[in-house]
Amino acid sequence: MIDSILSEHKKLKKSYDQGESPLLELRNISIECIEKLNEELDFVQYGRADEKEYIVYFNQHNKSRPVNKNLFINDSSLFEKQWNLFLESIDSEKHSCEMEVEEINRVIYSSIISFSVCFDVWKPKSRKTPGTHFEVLLGSVLKQFLLEYSREKFVSLPRQEEKVSTDIVFDLNGAGIVIPAKITTRERIVQPYAHQRILDSIFGEGRYKSILLCVSETQREDDKKIVNDICVPGTLKLFQEHLSKLSGLYYLDPPNRYMRKDIAGLITVGDYGKLLKIDLANLVN
Amino acid sequence: MIDSILSEHKKLKKSYDQGESPLLELRNISIECIEKLNEELDFVQYGRADEKEYIVYFNQHNKSRPVNKNLFINDSSLFEKQWNLFLESIDSEKHSCEMEVEEINRVIYSSIISFSVCFDVWKPKSRKTPGTHFEVLLGSVLKQFLLEYSREKFVSLPRQEEKVSTDIVFDLNGAGIVIPAKITTRERIVQPYAHQRILDSIFGEGRYKSILLCVSETQREDDKKIVNDICVPGTLKLFQEHLSKLSGLYYLDPPNRYMRKDIAGLITVGDYGKLLKIDLANLVN
Repeated sequence: MIDSILSEHKKLKKSYDQGESPLLELRNISIECIEKLNEELDFVQYGRADEKEYIVYFNQHNKSRPVNKNLFINDSSLFEKQWNLFLESIDSEKHSCEMEVEEINRVIYSSIISFSVCFDVWKPKSRKTPGTHFEVLLGSVLKQFLLEYSREKFVSLPRQEEKVSTDIVFDLNGAGIVIPAKITTRERIVQPYAHQRILDSIFGEGRYKSILLCVSETQREDDKKIVNDICVPGTLKLFQEHLSKLSGLYYLDPPNRYMRKDIAGLITVGDYGKLLKIDLANLVN
Repeated sequence: MIDSILSEHKKLKKSYDQGESPLLELRNISIECIEKLNEELDFVQYGRADEKEYIVYFNQHNKSRPVNKNLFINDSSLFEKQWNLFLESIDSEKHSCEMEVEEINRVIYSSIISFSVCFDVWKPKSRKTPGTHFEVLLGSVLKQFLLEYSREKFVSLPRQEEKVSTDIVFDLNGAGIVIPAKITTRERIVQPYAHQRILDSIFGEGRYKSILLCVSETQREDDKKIVNDICVPGTLKLFQEHLSKLSGLYYLDPPNRYMRKDIAGLITVGDYGKLLKIDLANLVN
Protein backbone atom coordinates (compact mmCIF):
# COMPACT_ATOMS: atom_id res chain seq x y z
CA MET A 1 0.00 0.00 0.00
CA ILE A 2 2.96 2.33 0.48
CA ASP A 3 3.61 1.68 -3.20
CA SER A 4 0.18 3.02 -4.10
CA ILE A 5 0.97 6.14 -2.01
CA LEU A 6 4.27 6.48 -3.84
CA SER A 7 2.57 6.22 -7.20
CA GLU A 8 -0.05 8.81 -6.18
CA HIS A 9 2.78 11.07 -5.08
CA LYS A 10 4.46 10.64 -8.46
CA LYS A 11 1.23 11.41 -10.27
CA LEU A 12 0.54 14.60 -8.38
CA LYS A 13 4.19 15.65 -8.69
CA LYS A 14 3.87 15.32 -12.44
CA SER A 15 0.72 17.41 -12.52
CA TYR A 16 2.46 20.01 -10.28
CA ASP A 17 5.43 20.12 -12.65
CA GLN A 18 3.00 20.93 -15.46
CA GLY A 19 1.79 23.99 -13.56
CA GLU A 20 -1.22 22.50 -11.76
CA SER A 21 -1.91 22.70 -8.03
CA PRO A 22 -3.24 19.22 -7.15
CA LEU A 23 -4.82 20.22 -3.84
CA LEU A 24 -7.44 17.49 -3.75
CA GLU A 25 -4.85 14.80 -4.39
CA LEU A 26 -2.57 16.31 -1.75
CA ARG A 27 -5.38 16.22 0.80
CA ASN A 28 -6.31 12.66 -0.06
CA ILE A 29 -2.78 11.34 0.14
CA SER A 30 -2.46 12.82 3.65
CA ILE A 31 -5.75 11.26 4.72
CA GLU A 32 -4.50 7.93 3.48
CA CYS A 33 -1.20 8.35 5.34
CA ILE A 34 -2.89 9.35 8.61
CA GLU A 35 -5.18 6.31 8.43
CA LYS A 36 -2.36 3.97 7.52
CA LEU A 37 -0.10 5.04 10.36
CA ASN A 38 -2.96 4.85 12.87
CA GLU A 39 -3.87 1.36 11.77
CA GLU A 40 -0.46 -0.15 11.36
CA LEU A 41 2.04 1.59 13.61
CA ASP A 42 2.84 1.80 17.27
CA PHE A 43 4.27 4.92 18.79
CA VAL A 44 6.30 5.90 21.80
CA GLN A 45 6.78 9.22 23.52
CA TYR A 46 10.23 10.83 23.41
CA GLY A 47 11.41 13.23 26.10
CA ARG A 48 12.28 16.90 25.87
CA ALA A 49 13.86 19.59 28.01
CA ASP A 50 11.14 22.10 27.09
CA GLU A 51 7.36 21.92 27.06
CA LYS A 52 7.05 20.34 23.60
CA GLU A 53 5.87 16.75 23.33
CA TYR A 54 7.10 14.40 20.62
CA ILE A 55 6.18 10.88 19.61
CA VAL A 56 7.99 8.47 17.32
CA TYR A 57 6.12 5.92 15.21
CA PHE A 58 7.68 2.52 14.58
CA ASN A 59 7.21 -0.95 13.24
CA GLN A 60 9.49 -3.98 13.56
CA HIS A 61 12.07 -2.54 11.22
CA ASN A 62 12.11 1.23 11.29
CA LYS A 63 11.42 4.35 13.30
CA SER A 64 9.84 7.57 12.07
CA ARG A 65 11.15 11.08 12.52
CA PRO A 66 9.82 12.83 15.66
CA VAL A 67 6.24 14.09 15.46
CA ASN A 68 5.12 17.09 17.49
CA LYS A 69 2.06 15.76 19.30
CA ASN A 70 0.25 19.07 19.61
CA LEU A 71 0.71 19.96 15.96
CA PHE A 72 -0.34 16.62 14.51
CA ILE A 73 -4.03 16.11 13.69
CA ASN A 74 -4.05 12.32 13.88
CA ASP A 75 -7.77 12.01 13.14
CA SER A 76 -8.26 11.80 9.38
CA SER A 77 -11.83 13.19 9.38
CA LEU A 78 -10.80 16.17 11.45
CA PHE A 79 -7.80 16.71 9.18
CA GLU A 80 -10.04 16.63 6.12
CA LYS A 81 -12.40 19.16 7.66
CA GLN A 82 -9.60 21.49 8.74
CA TRP A 83 -7.85 21.26 5.36
CA ASN A 84 -11.05 22.26 3.60
CA LEU A 85 -11.69 25.12 6.01
CA PHE A 86 -8.14 26.35 5.54
CA LEU A 87 -8.39 26.46 1.75
CA GLU A 88 -11.81 28.11 1.92
CA SER A 89 -10.45 30.77 4.29
CA ILE A 90 -7.84 31.97 1.76
CA ASP A 91 -8.45 35.48 0.47
CA SER A 92 -6.26 35.61 -2.62
CA GLU A 93 -6.88 39.29 -3.24
CA LYS A 94 -5.53 40.13 0.20
CA HIS A 95 -2.80 37.44 -0.02
CA SER A 96 -3.97 36.27 3.37
CA CYS A 97 -6.38 33.89 5.05
CA GLU A 98 -8.92 33.86 7.85
CA MET A 99 -8.05 30.68 9.70
CA GLU A 100 -6.45 30.99 13.15
CA VAL A 101 -2.65 30.92 13.30
CA GLU A 102 -2.40 27.67 15.31
CA GLU A 103 -4.84 25.88 13.04
CA ILE A 104 -2.91 26.83 9.90
CA ASN A 105 0.24 25.29 11.34
CA ARG A 106 -1.61 22.16 12.36
CA VAL A 107 -3.14 21.56 8.93
CA ILE A 108 0.09 21.95 6.97
CA TYR A 109 2.17 20.14 9.58
CA SER A 110 -0.21 17.17 9.62
CA SER A 111 -0.20 16.99 5.86
CA ILE A 112 3.58 16.75 5.47
CA ILE A 113 4.40 14.84 8.67
CA SER A 114 1.94 12.01 7.96
CA PHE A 115 3.48 11.50 4.54
CA SER A 116 7.02 11.67 5.95
CA VAL A 117 6.30 9.19 8.74
CA CYS A 118 4.98 6.65 6.23
CA PHE A 119 8.10 7.01 4.10
CA ASP A 120 10.43 6.84 7.13
CA VAL A 121 8.91 3.54 8.16
CA TRP A 122 7.96 1.83 4.88
CA LYS A 123 10.26 3.40 2.29
CA PRO A 124 13.34 4.54 4.20
CA LYS A 125 15.46 4.35 1.04
CA SER A 126 13.30 6.97 -0.72
CA ARG A 127 14.95 9.58 1.44
CA LYS A 128 14.29 12.48 -0.89
CA THR A 129 10.59 11.84 -1.52
CA PRO A 130 9.21 13.64 1.57
CA GLY A 131 11.23 16.73 0.63
CA THR A 132 9.83 16.69 -2.89
CA HIS A 133 6.33 16.20 -1.54
CA PHE A 134 6.84 19.17 0.81
CA GLU A 135 7.79 21.34 -2.16
CA VAL A 136 4.69 20.31 -4.11
CA LEU A 137 2.49 20.88 -1.05
CA LEU A 138 3.85 24.38 -0.40
CA GLY A 139 3.88 25.40 -4.06
CA SER A 140 0.29 24.30 -4.50
CA VAL A 141 -1.00 25.97 -1.33
CA LEU A 142 0.94 29.21 -1.79
CA LYS A 143 -0.32 29.52 -5.35
CA GLN A 144 -3.81 30.07 -3.85
CA PHE A 145 -2.44 33.10 -2.02
CA LEU A 146 -0.61 34.45 -5.07
CA LEU A 147 -2.96 33.78 -7.96
CA GLU A 148 -1.62 36.57 -10.17
CA TYR A 149 1.98 35.31 -9.87
CA SER A 150 3.48 32.68 -12.12
CA ARG A 151 5.05 29.75 -10.29
CA GLU A 152 8.51 28.65 -11.41
CA LYS A 153 11.36 26.52 -10.08
CA PHE A 154 14.09 29.04 -10.87
CA VAL A 155 14.86 32.67 -11.65
CA SER A 156 16.06 33.22 -15.22
CA LEU A 157 19.00 35.58 -15.51
CA PRO A 158 19.47 38.23 -18.20
CA ARG A 159 22.16 37.51 -20.82
CA GLN A 160 23.15 34.09 -19.48
CA GLU A 161 22.11 30.51 -19.82
CA GLU A 162 22.56 29.79 -16.13
CA LYS A 163 19.53 30.04 -13.86
CA VAL A 164 19.28 30.43 -10.10
CA SER A 165 17.53 27.18 -9.25
CA THR A 166 15.67 27.25 -6.00
CA ASP A 167 12.67 25.21 -5.03
CA ILE A 168 9.73 27.57 -5.66
CA VAL A 169 9.65 31.05 -7.22
CA PHE A 170 6.56 33.25 -7.51
CA ASP A 171 7.26 35.81 -10.20
CA LEU A 172 5.30 38.86 -11.33
CA ASN A 173 6.82 41.07 -14.01
CA GLY A 174 10.39 40.12 -13.16
CA ALA A 175 10.13 40.49 -9.40
CA GLY A 176 8.94 38.17 -6.70
CA ILE A 177 9.35 35.73 -3.88
CA VAL A 178 12.00 33.01 -3.86
CA ILE A 179 11.16 30.07 -1.62
CA PRO A 180 13.71 27.43 -0.71
CA ALA A 181 11.65 24.66 0.93
CA LYS A 182 13.53 22.25 3.17
CA ILE A 183 12.06 19.85 5.72
CA THR A 184 15.17 20.60 7.82
CA THR A 185 18.11 22.80 6.87
CA ARG A 186 21.21 21.85 8.86
CA GLU A 187 24.33 22.83 6.95
CA ARG A 188 22.38 23.39 3.72
CA ILE A 189 21.31 26.79 4.96
CA VAL A 190 24.21 28.35 2.99
CA GLN A 191 22.42 27.80 -0.35
CA PRO A 192 19.47 30.23 0.11
CA TYR A 193 21.85 32.92 1.35
CA ALA A 194 24.17 32.47 -1.64
CA HIS A 195 21.23 32.60 -4.04
CA GLN A 196 19.84 35.77 -2.46
CA ARG A 197 23.26 37.41 -2.76
CA ILE A 198 23.48 36.51 -6.45
CA LEU A 199 19.96 37.83 -7.10
CA ASP A 200 20.83 41.09 -5.29
CA SER A 201 23.99 41.38 -7.37
CA ILE A 202 22.22 40.80 -10.68
CA PHE A 203 18.85 42.51 -10.16
CA GLY A 204 19.62 44.97 -7.36
CA GLU A 205 18.39 44.55 -3.80
CA GLY A 206 14.67 44.14 -3.26
CA ARG A 207 13.59 42.75 -6.64
CA TYR A 208 13.59 39.17 -5.40
CA LYS A 209 13.08 38.33 -1.75
CA SER A 210 13.84 34.94 -0.22
CA ILE A 211 11.88 33.25 2.52
CA LEU A 212 13.09 29.90 3.80
CA LEU A 213 10.26 27.49 4.62
CA CYS A 214 11.03 24.49 6.84
CA VAL A 215 9.23 21.94 8.97
CA SER A 216 11.51 21.66 12.01
CA GLU A 217 15.10 21.06 13.09
CA THR A 218 14.39 18.06 15.30
CA GLN A 219 16.48 14.92 15.57
CA ARG A 220 15.87 11.71 17.52
CA GLU A 221 18.41 10.59 20.08
CA ASP A 222 17.39 6.96 20.40
CA ASP A 223 19.52 5.75 23.27
CA LYS A 224 18.18 8.48 25.55
CA LYS A 225 14.72 8.54 23.90
CA ILE A 226 14.79 12.29 23.57
CA VAL A 227 14.31 14.78 20.74
CA ASN A 228 16.94 17.45 20.15
CA ASP A 229 16.84 20.56 18.00
CA ILE A 230 19.87 20.84 15.75
CA CYS A 231 20.35 24.59 15.39
CA VAL A 232 23.20 26.67 14.00
CA PRO A 233 22.50 30.14 15.44
CA GLY A 234 26.09 31.34 14.96
CA THR A 235 26.12 30.37 11.30
CA LEU A 236 22.71 31.93 10.78
CA LYS A 237 23.85 35.24 12.30
CA LEU A 238 27.03 35.22 10.25
CA PHE A 239 25.16 34.59 6.99
CA GLN A 240 22.39 37.11 7.72
CA GLU A 241 24.92 39.81 8.62
CA HIS A 242 27.60 39.18 6.03
CA LEU A 243 26.28 37.13 3.13
CA SER A 244 22.79 38.43 2.30
CA LYS A 245 19.43 39.14 3.91
CA LEU A 246 16.71 36.53 3.91
CA SER A 247 13.30 38.15 4.36
CA GLY A 248 12.13 35.44 6.70
CA LEU A 249 12.69 32.05 8.20
CA TYR A 250 9.48 30.10 8.82
CA TYR A 251 8.95 26.78 10.56
CA LEU A 252 5.84 24.70 11.10
CA ASP A 253 7.47 23.67 14.37
CA PRO A 254 9.91 26.53 15.09
CA PRO A 255 12.95 25.59 17.21
CA ASN A 256 12.88 27.63 20.42
CA ARG A 257 16.50 28.62 19.89
CA TYR A 258 15.64 30.60 16.74
CA MET A 259 12.81 32.46 18.47
CA ARG A 260 15.26 34.02 20.95
CA LYS A 261 16.08 37.69 20.63
CA ASP A 262 19.59 37.41 19.17
CA ILE A 263 18.20 35.64 16.08
CA ALA A 264 14.69 37.07 15.94
CA GLY A 265 16.15 40.59 16.20
CA LEU A 266 18.21 39.96 13.08
CA ILE A 267 15.78 38.05 10.87
CA THR A 268 12.03 37.59 10.85
CA VAL A 269 11.38 34.16 12.35
CA GLY A 270 7.96 32.66 12.71
CA ASP A 271 5.48 29.93 12.02
CA TYR A 272 3.29 29.50 8.95
CA GLY A 273 0.37 31.17 10.65
CA LYS A 274 2.37 34.38 10.90
CA LEU A 275 3.55 33.99 7.31
CA LEU A 276 0.17 33.31 5.75
CA LYS A 277 -1.98 35.64 7.82
CA ILE A 278 0.39 38.61 8.06
CA ASP A 279 3.87 38.58 6.54
CA LEU A 280 3.11 37.32 3.02
CA ALA A 281 0.78 40.23 2.28
CA ASN A 282 3.47 42.69 3.45
CA LEU A 283 6.10 40.98 1.33
CA VAL A 284 4.17 41.23 -1.91
CA ASN A 285 2.59 44.65 -1.40
CA MET B 1 45.46 -5.02 6.66
CA ILE B 2 43.18 -2.18 5.62
CA ASP B 3 42.48 -1.86 9.34
CA SER B 4 46.14 -1.25 10.02
CA ILE B 5 46.12 1.44 7.29
CA LEU B 6 43.06 2.99 8.90
CA SER B 7 44.72 3.02 12.29
CA GLU B 8 47.88 4.58 10.82
CA HIS B 9 45.68 7.20 9.18
CA LYS B 10 44.03 7.94 12.53
CA LYS B 11 47.39 8.22 14.22
CA LEU B 12 48.80 10.68 11.70
CA LYS B 13 45.54 12.64 11.69
CA LYS B 14 45.86 13.03 15.43
CA SER B 15 49.43 14.26 15.14
CA TYR B 16 48.34 16.67 12.36
CA ASP B 17 45.55 18.02 14.57
CA GLN B 18 48.16 18.77 17.22
CA GLY B 19 50.06 20.95 14.74
CA GLU B 20 52.56 18.42 13.40
CA SER B 21 53.19 17.65 9.72
CA PRO B 22 53.59 13.86 9.65
CA LEU B 23 55.29 13.71 6.24
CA LEU B 24 57.14 10.46 6.81
CA GLU B 25 53.98 8.69 7.94
CA LEU B 26 52.08 10.12 4.96
CA ARG B 27 54.72 8.79 2.59
CA ASN B 28 54.76 5.37 4.22
CA ILE B 29 51.01 4.95 4.19
CA SER B 30 50.98 5.71 0.44
CA ILE B 31 53.75 3.18 -0.18
CA GLU B 32 51.74 0.61 1.71
CA CYS B 33 48.60 1.42 -0.29
CA ILE B 34 50.41 1.24 -3.64
CA GLU B 35 51.87 -2.14 -2.76
CA LYS B 36 48.59 -3.47 -1.46
CA LEU B 37 46.59 -2.50 -4.52
CA ASN B 38 49.24 -3.92 -6.85
CA GLU B 39 49.29 -7.21 -5.00
CA GLU B 40 45.62 -7.72 -4.37
CA LEU B 41 43.57 -5.92 -7.01
CA ASP B 42 42.76 -6.32 -10.68
CA PHE B 43 42.11 -3.34 -12.85
CA VAL B 44 40.29 -2.54 -16.07
CA GLN B 45 40.63 0.36 -18.47
CA TYR B 46 37.69 2.75 -18.80
CA GLY B 47 37.07 4.74 -21.98
CA ARG B 48 37.14 8.48 -22.54
CA ALA B 49 36.20 10.94 -25.23
CA ASP B 50 39.47 12.85 -24.80
CA GLU B 51 43.09 11.74 -24.63
CA LYS B 52 43.11 10.90 -20.92
CA GLU B 53 43.37 7.27 -19.86
CA TYR B 54 41.67 5.94 -16.74
CA ILE B 55 41.71 2.62 -14.98
CA VAL B 56 39.42 1.27 -12.28
CA TYR B 57 40.67 -1.16 -9.62
CA PHE B 58 38.33 -3.85 -8.34
CA ASN B 59 37.93 -6.97 -6.27
CA GLN B 60 34.98 -9.34 -6.00
CA HIS B 61 32.88 -6.82 -4.11
CA ASN B 62 33.78 -3.27 -4.98
CA LYS B 63 35.20 -0.93 -7.60
CA SER B 64 37.54 1.99 -7.03
CA ARG B 65 37.13 5.53 -8.24
CA PRO B 66 38.77 6.18 -11.66
CA VAL B 67 42.55 6.52 -11.61
CA ASN B 68 44.35 8.65 -14.20
CA LYS B 69 46.94 6.26 -15.61
CA ASN B 70 49.51 8.88 -16.56
CA LEU B 71 49.36 10.61 -13.19
CA PHE B 72 49.59 7.51 -11.04
CA ILE B 73 53.05 6.28 -10.02
CA ASN B 74 52.11 2.66 -9.39
CA ASP B 75 55.68 1.61 -8.50
CA SER B 76 56.18 2.08 -4.77
CA SER B 77 59.99 2.51 -4.96
CA LEU B 78 59.68 5.14 -7.66
CA PHE B 79 56.97 6.87 -5.64
CA GLU B 80 59.19 6.89 -2.57
CA LYS B 81 62.08 8.37 -4.54
CA GLN B 82 59.91 11.06 -6.17
CA TRP B 83 58.24 11.97 -2.89
CA ASN B 84 61.63 12.49 -1.26
CA LEU B 85 62.89 14.54 -4.23
CA PHE B 86 59.76 16.68 -4.13
CA LEU B 87 60.14 17.52 -0.45
CA GLU B 88 63.85 18.20 -0.86
CA SER B 89 63.13 20.54 -3.77
CA ILE B 90 60.97 22.86 -1.65
CA ASP B 91 62.47 26.31 -1.09
CA SER B 92 60.46 27.62 1.81
CA GLU B 93 62.00 31.09 1.65
CA LYS B 94 60.80 31.50 -1.92
CA HIS B 95 57.50 29.69 -1.21
CA SER B 96 58.24 27.56 -4.24
CA CYS B 97 59.97 24.34 -5.31
CA GLU B 98 62.36 23.10 -7.96
CA MET B 99 60.66 19.91 -9.13
CA GLU B 100 59.10 19.89 -12.60
CA VAL B 101 55.38 20.72 -12.84
CA GLU B 102 54.30 17.29 -14.09
CA GLU B 103 56.28 15.47 -11.45
CA ILE B 104 54.73 17.51 -8.64
CA ASN B 105 51.26 16.54 -9.80
CA ARG B 106 52.24 12.89 -10.09
CA VAL B 107 53.67 12.67 -6.57
CA ILE B 108 50.69 14.26 -4.83
CA TYR B 109 48.15 12.51 -7.05
CA SER B 110 49.71 9.10 -6.39
CA SER B 111 49.77 9.72 -2.68
CA ILE B 112 46.07 10.52 -2.35
CA ILE B 113 44.71 8.24 -5.09
CA SER B 114 46.41 5.10 -3.74
CA PHE B 115 44.88 5.74 -0.33
CA SER B 116 41.46 6.47 -1.83
CA VAL B 117 41.46 3.35 -4.01
CA CYS B 118 42.18 1.15 -0.98
CA PHE B 119 39.29 2.72 0.93
CA ASP B 120 36.92 2.50 -2.06
CA VAL B 121 37.54 -1.21 -2.31
CA TRP B 122 38.12 -2.36 1.26
CA LYS B 123 36.34 0.25 3.40
CA PRO B 124 33.60 1.68 1.20
CA LYS B 125 31.59 2.69 4.26
CA SER B 126 34.37 5.02 5.47
CA ARG B 127 33.38 7.42 2.76
CA LYS B 128 34.78 10.49 4.45
CA THR B 129 38.22 9.11 5.31
CA PRO B 130 39.92 9.81 1.95
CA GLY B 131 38.77 13.44 2.14
CA THR B 132 40.20 13.78 5.64
CA HIS B 133 43.43 12.18 4.53
CA PHE B 134 43.62 14.61 1.59
CA GLU B 135 43.30 17.53 4.00
CA VAL B 136 46.11 16.19 6.21
CA LEU B 137 48.31 15.54 3.16
CA LEU B 138 47.83 19.04 1.75
CA GLY B 139 48.14 20.80 5.08
CA SER B 140 51.37 18.95 5.87
CA VAL B 141 52.95 19.54 2.45
CA LEU B 142 51.88 23.18 2.16
CA LYS B 143 53.27 23.93 5.60
CA GLN B 144 56.75 23.25 4.14
CA PHE B 145 56.13 26.09 1.65
CA LEU B 146 54.76 28.45 4.30
CA LEU B 147 56.95 27.87 7.34
CA GLU B 148 56.40 31.30 8.86
CA TYR B 149 52.60 30.93 8.73
CA SER B 150 50.55 29.30 11.44
CA ARG B 151 48.27 26.52 10.22
CA GLU B 152 44.66 26.57 11.44
CA LYS B 153 41.34 24.98 10.50
CA PHE B 154 39.35 28.19 10.68
CA VAL B 155 39.52 31.97 10.65
CA SER B 156 38.59 33.56 13.98
CA LEU B 157 36.33 36.57 13.70
CA PRO B 158 36.60 39.75 15.74
CA ARG B 159 33.92 40.29 18.38
CA GLN B 160 32.05 37.04 17.79
CA GLU B 161 32.17 33.45 18.88
CA GLU B 162 31.45 32.10 15.43
CA LYS B 163 34.40 31.11 13.23
CA VAL B 164 34.66 30.63 9.49
CA SER B 165 35.52 26.93 9.40
CA THR B 166 37.25 25.86 6.26
CA ASP B 167 39.63 22.98 5.83
CA ILE B 168 43.07 24.64 6.03
CA VAL B 169 44.05 28.23 6.81
CA PHE B 170 47.59 29.62 6.73
CA ASP B 171 47.59 32.77 8.78
CA LEU B 172 50.30 35.41 9.30
CA ASN B 173 49.42 38.45 11.41
CA GLY B 174 45.72 38.27 10.67
CA ALA B 175 45.96 37.76 6.92
CA GLY B 176 46.48 34.70 4.83
CA ILE B 177 45.40 31.88 2.57
CA VAL B 178 42.17 29.96 3.05
CA ILE B 179 42.20 26.48 1.52
CA PRO B 180 39.07 24.43 1.11
CA ALA B 181 40.34 20.96 0.16
CA LYS B 182 37.85 18.67 -1.57
CA ILE B 183 38.62 15.49 -3.50
CA THR B 184 35.75 16.52 -5.80
CA THR B 185 33.46 19.55 -5.43
CA ARG B 186 30.14 18.99 -7.24
CA GLU B 187 27.41 21.09 -5.66
CA ARG B 188 29.54 21.80 -2.58
CA ILE B 189 31.40 24.51 -4.48
CA VAL B 190 29.02 27.09 -2.98
CA GLN B 191 30.70 26.84 0.44
CA PRO B 192 34.13 28.31 -0.44
CA TYR B 193 32.47 31.19 -2.29
CA ALA B 194 30.18 31.97 0.65
CA HIS B 195 33.11 31.87 3.06
CA GLN B 196 35.20 34.19 0.89
CA ARG B 197 32.31 36.63 0.74
CA ILE B 198 31.98 36.64 4.53
CA LEU B 199 35.73 37.16 4.97
CA ASP B 200 35.63 40.07 2.50
CA SER B 201 32.69 41.56 4.37
CA ILE B 202 34.35 41.27 7.78
CA PHE B 203 38.03 41.96 7.00
CA GLY B 204 37.81 43.87 3.73
CA GLU B 205 38.82 42.42 0.37
CA GLY B 206 42.31 41.01 0.05
CA ARG B 207 43.09 40.16 3.67
CA TYR B 208 42.18 36.49 3.23
CA LYS B 209 42.37 34.80 -0.16
CA SER B 210 40.77 31.46 -0.95
CA ILE B 211 42.18 28.80 -3.22
CA LEU B 212 40.16 25.66 -3.79
CA LEU B 213 42.27 22.51 -4.00
CA CYS B 214 40.75 19.40 -5.56
CA VAL B 215 41.80 16.08 -7.04
CA SER B 216 39.45 15.75 -10.02
CA GLU B 217 35.78 15.83 -11.04
CA THR B 218 35.67 12.35 -12.53
CA GLN B 219 32.86 9.84 -12.20
CA ARG B 220 32.58 6.23 -13.41
CA GLU B 221 29.77 5.27 -15.74
CA ASP B 222 29.86 1.53 -15.23
CA ASP B 223 27.41 0.30 -17.85
CA LYS B 224 29.34 2.05 -20.62
CA LYS B 225 32.74 1.60 -18.92
CA ILE B 226 33.62 5.23 -19.41
CA VAL B 227 34.77 8.06 -17.16
CA ASN B 228 32.91 11.37 -17.23
CA ASP B 229 33.83 14.74 -15.78
CA ILE B 230 31.02 16.24 -13.74
CA CYS B 231 31.51 19.97 -14.19
CA VAL B 232 29.30 22.93 -13.35
CA PRO B 233 30.77 25.73 -15.49
CA GLY B 234 27.60 27.85 -15.37
CA THR B 235 27.45 27.71 -11.58
CA LEU B 236 31.15 28.47 -11.33
CA LYS B 237 30.82 31.56 -13.53
CA LEU B 238 27.78 32.75 -11.61
CA PHE B 239 29.52 32.38 -8.25
CA GLN B 240 32.80 33.93 -9.40
CA GLU B 241 30.99 36.91 -10.92
CA HIS B 242 28.29 37.52 -8.35
CA LEU B 243 29.15 35.88 -5.03
CA SER B 244 32.86 36.42 -4.40
CA LYS B 245 36.26 35.93 -6.03
CA LEU B 246 38.26 32.80 -5.40
CA SER B 247 41.95 33.38 -6.08
CA GLY B 248 42.36 30.05 -7.78
CA LEU B 249 40.96 26.66 -8.53
CA TYR B 250 43.57 23.90 -8.61
CA TYR B 251 43.22 20.26 -9.60
CA LEU B 252 45.70 17.40 -9.60
CA ASP B 253 43.77 16.15 -12.64
CA PRO B 254 42.09 19.29 -14.02
CA PRO B 255 38.86 18.72 -15.97
CA ASN B 256 39.35 19.94 -19.54
CA ARG B 257 36.11 21.89 -19.34
CA TYR B 258 37.51 24.21 -16.67
CA MET B 259 40.66 24.92 -18.68
CA ARG B 260 38.62 26.50 -21.48
CA LYS B 261 38.71 30.24 -21.97
CA ASP B 262 35.28 31.13 -20.58
CA ILE B 263 36.28 29.75 -17.16
CA ALA B 264 40.05 30.26 -17.22
CA GLY B 265 39.48 33.91 -18.24
CA LEU B 266 37.42 34.48 -15.12
CA ILE B 267 39.37 32.53 -12.49
CA THR B 268 42.90 31.19 -12.26
CA VAL B 269 42.63 27.47 -12.99
CA GLY B 270 45.58 25.12 -12.93
CA ASP B 271 47.31 22.07 -11.62
CA TYR B 272 49.39 21.77 -8.47
CA GLY B 273 52.62 22.27 -10.40
CA LYS B 274 51.45 25.74 -11.37
CA LEU B 275 50.31 26.44 -7.82
CA LEU B 276 53.44 25.29 -6.04
CA LYS B 277 56.06 26.52 -8.49
CA ILE B 278 54.50 29.86 -9.44
CA ASP B 279 51.15 31.01 -8.05
CA LEU B 280 51.66 30.39 -4.32
CA ALA B 281 54.66 32.72 -4.16
CA ASN B 282 52.64 35.44 -5.89
CA LEU B 283 49.72 34.93 -3.55
CA VAL B 284 51.74 35.37 -0.36
CA ASN B 285 54.09 38.11 -1.54
